[in-house]
Amino acid sequence: MPEKVLVFSRFPKALMLRIGERFELMDAAGKPPNQMFSADHLAGVRAMITAGGTPLSSEMMDMMPKLGAIVCYGTGYDGVDLQAANTRKIMVGHSPGANAASVADIAVTLMLAATRRLLVADNYVRSGDWAAAKPSPMMRPQPGMPGRKVGIYGMGEIGRKIAARVAAFEAEVGYFSRSQRDVPYRYFPNLAALADWCGVLMIAVRAGAGTHHVVNADILKKLGEDGCIVNIARGSVIDQGALAKALTDNTIAAAGLDVYEKEPHAPDALTALPNVVLSPHIGGHTLESHTAMQDCVIANLTAFFAGNPLPYPVKEA
Amino acid sequence: MPEKVLVFSRFPKALMLRIGERFELMDAAGKPPNQMFSADHLAGVRAMITAGGTPLSSEMMDMMPKLGAIVCYGTGYDGVDLQAANTRKIMVGHSPGANAASVADIAVTLMLAATRRLLVADNYVRSGDWAAAKPSPMMRPQPGMPGRKVGIYGMGEIGRKIAARVAAFEAEVGYFSRSQRDVPYRYFPNLAALADWCGVLMIAVRAGAGTHHVVNADILKKLGEDGCIVNIARGSVIDQGALAKALTDNTIAAAGLDVYEKEPHAPDALTALPNVVLSPHIGGHTLESHTAMQDCVIANLTAFFAGNPLPYPVKEA
Repeated sequence: MPEKVLVFSRFPKALMLRIGERFELMDAAGKPPNQMFSADHLAGVRAMITAGGTPLSSEMMDMMPKLGAIVCYGTGYDGVDLQAANTRKIMVGHSPGANAASVADIAVTLMLAATRRLLVADNYVRSGDWAAAKPSPMMRPQPGMPGRKVGIYGMGEIGRKIAARVAAFEAEVGYFSRSQRDVPYRYFPNLAALADWCGVLMIAVRAGAGTHHVVNADILKKLGEDGCIVNIARGSVIDQGALAKALTDNTIAAAGLDVYEKEPHAPDALTALPNVVLSPHIGGHTLESHTAMQDCVIANLTAFFAGNPLPYPVKEA
Repeated sequence: MPEKVLVFSRFPKALMLRIGERFELMDAAGKPPNQMFSADHLAGVRAMITAGGTPLSSEMMDMMPKLGAIVCYGTGYDGVDLQAANTRKIMVGHSPGANAASVADIAVTLMLAATRRLLVADNYVRSGDWAAAKPSPMMRPQPGMPGRKVGIYGMGEIGRKIAARVAAFEAEVGYFSRSQRDVPYRYFPNLAALADWCGVLMIAVRAGAGTHHVVNADILKKLGEDGCIVNIARGSVIDQGALAKALTDNTIAAAGLDVYEKEPHAPDALTALPNVVLSPHIGGHTLESHTAMQDCVIANLTAFFAGNPLPYPVKEA
């Protein structure tokens, strides 16, 4: 009989198909598990799958007294109360790097679309304004990529892949991360120094308490009036109000965002702006990326039920 | 006294500022020169500036009996009747490579935006449908870049820069051009073989009589149902009707277009589709690219009026 696994976050069913062939999935669909299942049912649950960004508190864990493994679908695990898991001897696993290329690709997609004003361009053609010879909303040429200074905040697997892609556009690449890495890019000792240097800032840092709103009005101002910011990490890293203001009063030129402070929700102050490109947290949403993340989830669950250490453990856990 | 130069195509005034500091510009703004200027005025014109894609016939040339130089702003010169220019001993110059990085960048921008369905994604967030938990229009994950086969048609300066960028996305790169080049990518001896192999086709060929509608329904079908086509060269290379049909009946998945058969005009059959990304021929439209193109125009005109050969001549001319 297959082992029972609680699915905690709300996932499209298609993503759980392969995992469901191996395990008996109990889908809580983003609701508190005790609203969806009886205490008897929950008592049998030894493992759960969650999206790393979904808040997962000690109270939720305590609804499943036999819980021994929390398996995050994706790289992130910032929603999981790691200390609570540790206290309860619950292992925490994730899918490190499985979606790195896919996320790096969306970062570069957003950077290019924002700096080249692709949405404005498409609308100019699609509306018929171009054919009607109406004044172009993109009359003023923008800086291109060659020679542009692109700063990357965070130099983990995703940051490295962003850097490799950006360098191919003949741009200069610099970065800040907690420590200097063995990479051929210029290192800056703090975020302010990186923002002083660069015109495009790409956020690829692992989010946590120490990164909350570190990208604030001061950092944004340093990017300059041609500046552009891209965030594919977590919405909490940017002060979203300060960003909306900087984009509205042209302190910076553009932004590309895949993540938001409260998902699924992008505030009206951002969705009303023409100089932002918005995607619904789809960084990891490619065929290969999902397959790789599912491989990690299956490997983590299989090892756990066999009584072995997780092959893809969260190292801080 | 500065030399007189006719500006034949319709250019934004800002692009002619630096050139206008050196020469006396007579702006025909896209109209036949004899509608804008008297025969006396035209009799004094020895050089003209044109956009390479604008049709420039022998009749137009004959309106300026002393015309000795046609200087194209940009890389292309497909609109210029080279044989007519040659017969009249008119030199033809252009700006080779000046916009190559900028055009390659827009090609990759369109490729990424089309394959990751960026317009659909932005609309899903911006409309509030994501926040309202309405069904996602991007439920089905698309293939990502790593391992994807990307074919490049044309391996001139722009094609090379596209290839270098695409390779950084961990994709496989192949190409077809008239002859095999010294590049580290797989060569295919014809367009059909390239289209058989690849899933994403990037058109970077120099357009001419031999390339008219070579990307037809047969070539498009070879790309497959996940296929994507990007065109930053000239609209005439693609059979636009066949493309609209292939996108409508899902023969291929997506397209990104910066150029069209009749500019400034994208047909309704394309502008009505959600699976295309359209830009208004802005490939070369960056600050550095314009500066570089203006440098070439100024250098060509200065050499011509000094009685020297053009430093950036069209080699076929």
